[in-house]
Amino acid sequence: MLLNRNIFTMASNFLGEIFRMTTFGESHGPAVGVVIDGCPADLAISKEDIDKELIFRRPGTNAHTSPRKEEDFIRILSGIFEGKTTGAPIALLIKNQDARPDQYETFKNLYRPGHANFTYLEKYGIFDYRGGGRSSARETAARVAAGAIAKKLLAHFGIECLAFVSEIGGIKIPSQDFSNLKALKECTHKSLIFCPDPKTESLILEKIEKIKQEKDSLGGIITCIAHVPVGLGDPVYNKLEALLAFAMLSIPATKGFEIGSGFEASRMKGSEHNDPFDLDSEENVHTATNHAGGTLGGISTGSPLIFNVAFKPPSGIKKPQETISLDKEKSILQLPASARHDPCVAIRGAPVVEAMTALVLADRVLANRLVRL
Amino acid sequence: MLLNRNIFTMASNFLGEIFRMTTFGESHGPAVGVVIDGCPADLAISKEDIDKELIFRRPGTNAHTSPRKEEDFIRILSGIFEGKTTGAPIALLIKNQDARPDQYETFKNLYRPGHANFTYLEKYGIFDYRGGGRSSARETAARVAAGAIAKKLLAHFGIECLAFVSEIGGIKIPSQDFSNLKALKECTHKSLIFCPDPKTESLILEKIEKIKQEKDSLGGIITCIAHVPVGLGDPVYNKLEALLAFAMLSIPATKGFEIGSGFEASRMKGSEHNDPFDLDSEENVHTATNHAGGTLGGISTGSPLIFNVAFKPPSGIKKPQETISLDKEKSILQLPASARHDPCVAIRGAPVVEAMTALVLADRVLANRLVRL
Amino acid sequence: MLLNRNIFTMASNFLGEIFRMTTFGESHGPAVGVVIDGCPADLAISKEDIDKELIFRRPGTNAHTSPRKEEDFIRILSGIFEGKTTGAPIALLIKNQDARPDQYETFKNLYRPGHANFTYLEKYGIFDYRGGGRSSARETAARVAAGAIAKKLLAHFGIECLAFVSEIGGIKIPSQDFSNLKALKECTHKSLIFCPDPKTESLILEKIEKIKQEKDSLGGIITCIAHVPVGLGDPVYNKLEALLAFAMLSIPATKGFEIGSGFEASRMKGSEHNDPFDLDSEENVHTATNHAGGTLGGISTGSPLIFNVAFKPPSGIKKPQETISLDKEKSILQLPASARHDPCVAIRGAPVVEAMTALVLADRVLANRLVRL
Amino acid sequence: MLLNRNIFTMASNFLGEIFRMTTFGESHGPAVGVVIDGCPADLAISKEDIDKELIFRRPGTNAHTSPRKEEDFIRILSGIFEGKTTGAPIALLIKNQDARPDQYETFKNLYRPGHANFTYLEKYGIFDYRGGGRSSARETAARVAAGAIAKKLLAHFGIECLAFVSEIGGIKIPSQDFSNLKALKECTHKSLIFCPDPKTESLILEKIEKIKQEKDSLGGIITCIAHVPVGLGDPVYNKLEALLAFAMLSIPATKGFEIGSGFEASRMKGSEHNDPFDLDSEENVHTATNHAGGTLGGISTGSPLIFNVAFKPPSGIKKPQETISLDKEKSILQLPASARHDPCVAIRGAPVVEAMTALVLADRVLANRLVRL
Repeated sequence: MLLNRNIFTMASNFLGEIFRMTTFGESHGPAVGVVIDGCPADLAISKEDIDKELIFRRPGTNAHTSPRKEEDFIRILSGIFEGKTTGAPIALLIKNQDARPDQYETFKNLYRPGHANFTYLEKYGIFDYRGGGRSSARETAARVAAGAIAKKLLAHFGIECLAFVSEIGGIKIPSQDFSNLKALKECTHKSLIFCPDPKTESLILEKIEKIKQEKDSLGGIITCIAHVPVGLGDPVYNKLEALLAFAMLSIPATKGFEIGSGFEASRMKGSEHNDPFDLDSEENVHTATNHAGGTLGGISTGSPLIFNVAFKPPSGIKKPQETISLDKEKSILQLPASARHDPCVAIRGAPVVEAMTALVLADRVLANRLVRL
Repeated sequence: MLLNRNIFTMASNFLGEIFRMTTFGESHGPAVGVVIDGCPADLAISKEDIDKELIFRRPGTNAHTSPRKEEDFIRILSGIFEGKTTGAPIALLIKNQDARPDQYETFKNLYRPGHANFTYLEKYGIFDYRGGGRSSARETAARVAAGAIAKKLLAHFGIECLAFVSEIGGIKIPSQDFSNLKALKECTHKSLIFCPDPKTESLILEKIEKIKQEKDSLGGIITCIAHVPVGLGDPVYNKLEALLAFAMLSIPATKGFEIGSGFEASRMKGSEHNDPFDLDSEENVHTATNHAGGTLGGISTGSPLIFNVAFKPPSGIKKPQETISLDKEKSILQLPASARHDPCVAIRGAPVVEAMTALVLADRVLANRLVRL
Repeated sequence: MLLNRNIFTMASNFLGEIFRMTTFGESHGPAVGVVIDGCPADLAISKEDIDKELIFRRPGTNAHTSPRKEEDFIRILSGIFEGKTTGAPIALLIKNQDARPDQYETFKNLYRPGHANFTYLEKYGIFDYRGGGRSSARETAARVAAGAIAKKLLAHFGIECLAFVSEIGGIKIPSQDFSNLKALKECTHKSLIFCPDPKTESLILEKIEKIKQEKDSLGGIITCIAHVPVGLGDPVYNKLEALLAFAMLSIPATKGFEIGSGFEASRMKGSEHNDPFDLDSEENVHTATNHAGGTLGGISTGSPLIFNVAFKPPSGIKKPQETISLDKEKSILQLPASARHDPCVAIRGAPVVEAMTALVLADRVLANRLVRL
Repeated sequence: MLLNRNIFTMASNFLGEIFRMTTFGESHGPAVGVVIDGCPADLAISKEDIDKELIFRRPGTNAHTSPRKEEDFIRILSGIFEGKTTGAPIALLIKNQDARPDQYETFKNLYRPGHANFTYLEKYGIFDYRGGGRSSARETAARVAAGAIAKKLLAHFGIECLAFVSEIGGIKIPSQDFSNLKALKECTHKSLIFCPDPKTESLILEKIEKIKQEKDSLGGIITCIAHVPVGLGDPVYNKLEALLAFAMLSIPATKGFEIGSGFEASRMKGSEHNDPFDLDSEENVHTATNHAGGTLGGISTGSPLIFNVAFKPPSGIKKPQETISLDKEKSILQLPASARHDPCVAIRGAPVVEAMTALVLADRVLANRLVRL
């Protein structure tokens, strides 16, 4: 049989073809980090630019996300000299300081429902039970650090993106104005849970409080908007939406991706769904509506990119759960009362969705410069 | 400004890291084709194996898909000797025989709503108005041909997959038994529209007939099932679901991807969504339910892979549509009565979804062999 | 044991990261061909541009190269529309017309000294004895066709290169003036054997005539010059000389590569080898000498690139040779009198070296545009 | 003009397709390091395995290499758990401790003959004058660390390699017995300058002493031998010799690569150069001679791999040299008496050649497992 234990690799820890990041580090090792290969020279980047983004995704920022406390501040090892990129690979390191491996001791011999320890063990024959190793959300800190640099590059080209909570536990925000990204960003960043609508925020916070008492968890949907010029993405395989779908489904706990009208498009007629071409106030061709979500034929149209990412409810709940032990006994998994418990990872997912979007767009903006005659 | 006309490439016409296909050819050029680099030696492949798959996706197979008639039979140029692969690159060619460029003449100066000619023109400064060039669904014939070889490789490992119509124009099939893939395949292949449930098929056929009379079009959802061993996919970026999402969103007219409970997961509680581990009748660990859709932490669990792909209604409708001409005049686009008209591309999408799934799985099966100690 | 028969692939039939070619086709199959993915749109290319280059490398052009006669004319399948590239992948096909598999019949069961049939059989368990399959020099026709397009792209940037015979069978040309590439090109193209010095050409032709009578073969050295701007190549792994070395050693029958002073540098002192910086007549910084051969730290200096490629004497000689049969019997390999016999592949190697140089430079010129801020 | 200042990247800081290393870090930054993505799980690796290799290449190990003193000991950040690889990316860090940027102050405004500061400045518009930045030989410490892991992997497959000094300043070692790699390794490792022949070592040491007094430097040749099974390397572009040539020419200060008979092959006849097939004592097919140097058609034959790498004399000499300043004035470069001065980098090149060979072979051994049917 092909797939024996003890035999595999975790290769492919990179993203991007031109602006390429390679991440490393486990949840309970000394550090997580990232190497960015392919960032242009002469881009101004400060440690603060990166720290600022890390603070957003930091577990423990508020009462509604995982209360692991870490400083999460970045150390720049290479590639930036006197405040500017030199074109050399940029290596960033984030120390792990609050690892509590002991809390995983009691259930280290159980397959955890919804977790990766079953598949990791089957694939590698090895599983670092102390906090998920590579499968931990801790790895996303490296993505956010790299995303901070991608955002600086995008800013140079006037490109920006924003991810926000649009639905948690079935509670949806009302529809938003996506043309005013600045206002939307302000509302989003005021919210403890990245929810731009204060009323919805209140309802969601209530629901989260309730689910914590139930020792259960909630799923949610993150919406991302990006203002990009026409022309990003390739026609056949590297379609912009395909690259975004890949990036989003690579985030832990995601279950779906849709762009523009998405799954709803499957229930529409062509005459309803087609976005008519029109002229804007400056006589430029644009689409009067944006069911497409900002791409046609895999290439950005210049209308806002709009897509949704579905997050499942976190698997780590404090209710007792039936499971099987590594020696194939029926067992009950009961997380200790003291264990960290994030009732809704979708919230922390917002900055990660934003970082991954920035990384995809940075790669594609550079790709577009490859090849002018 | 970065994104001027006349300056870009269509690079990236390949898929896969190990079992890699590169496609070429335009809708109205002499041929479309594909080169597969990385297929193991000694795999038995006949011309018929490939032709058989091409017949499935052939436009004109029945009254409900695009009536372009082509033989679509394959020519093997290299890599197969005396009925077996030699390890050398396999080149396959499919001639274009039914190109009718003249029918595109009347609207060659109009931006077509929902089509790629706007974005292609903006990106490349060049657009072959005769049938969509690279953006034509014709390109998917090359994917299906490559998929036929991928399927032969997968069969060697006992892996198979099936894509079928699960919803068209809002009409859904009842839930299916995904454990009996053989029976499901038989039902699907009996159907003119790849719909395994005969009752639903009738309703859908009726609805398609009606929409044709309305000169409009319908969207739909393709569901894909694959039986794969535990261990496919990588933990961090090349998660199996991420690779599938990429492959699916690279198919023309797709708007969304979800795996397992998908978007519905965002409305579930952790205690509902978590799949408890259990022992099967042979005392192997498996999950009692499959909300996950066959992966945990990016790696296949051994339970069936289940995912949905949303297709928008085709943009090429025969109703008159408002649009803008290349010289920025308001215009009406009216396809001629004689023009090809596919009222629901989702149907032809089924064999393409299946081929793309096979290509991803073939690549990942080989990836898993890379690295045993 | 790791490396059993019947188990491998011939993946990796591509070259280049941005301007990427993938070749396919065997010596005695229906055709050889190449797909170029990543060529910018709007580049003017005619069939004649490609045919012209193919004529140069054509076996049978003169009495001193392999007398296989083929038309070798190209068929353009995609990517070029109305005489210009569209950005889509360019597929080129060259039919095989003069295959004579029967002449290989008599020695199909013998390991041929210096040939690939031993290693191919060990690696793949399969060997197409009819003319070498993928290992045949026939494959280089696809490289030359792709190189023709690369040269058109380079011309746009004012870059050109020339490969010529600088030594055959120990007979060397006198040192040349590399600053006047135009004159050197004229002399080279006047020569039947790509030797820019007429006196040396005569001596070499004599020596080749003699070796043919001896039923033996000669090795040689090809020198390549390219005029390129400063800045091509990357500092650490993708050094320009490393990419060129890779490309050259990928040509059949090559045994060595050296740039600038090359192996002789190992016998020089630093004070002799260092090229002093100076100002040229237009007050630009340049190096007064060019021992480096046109690069420093992996990046082109703007001085001419100069490198040598060593070709072994062709293995296919008509003298009887001791060898072993596939069933492990001691045997004598005697090529039939009628067999093709190329007494010096280095000569045909010149256009291939030139094509490979053009392909590397085209890739690197585009790479340099990737990343300006 | 294409190649302006301030506009480029140093992307491509990686090597390998499967066993892939990405290096980072500058000579005078806080650290250099490497991430290895693609190493199989379950490989036993200790910190000592890596430190041991680093000691070999350490500047300051003896009087004849650069006297920069650093501990050069490794810190393992990820991918190794309880002494074994887990399949996750392995990150290794080496702190820089002996950086002396001040010694570069006096000549920071001069183009240094034979150095990369001219090309880096032209390409990136930025150059860290303090010790060469990325172009420093310091970067090779990361290669050697990665090579240590590659060697552990190769040992699992019974593959080993050895690089040694075969010529310095024109003084050559007598021909060696390459079949007894163990004995050759012992002799090499006894030598301060990796020279397996004691007599030659003495002569070379004398010559080095003399050249130091002359404030000048010497070039040299490193020979590398590897015992590998038949079947490594691909037929067309990823030929084993092409990959080795690439890896070798990516090492700073290299000017040439030749395999087997190398450049001498160009002066041989086919009847002399062809290696006749024969049976060895165990009735296995092998070649009686090894002019090929261990490959045929790009694939290893099972005979020892043998290749030479030419190193130029180091550019950093203490003699005064004519040059140009950044503001285009004629100037004299005079390194201070206290500056580090390595009279022959070829010596330190030996462990780097060995590491790069191990990295290429590790990648190819894994590649060969990709694709068995």
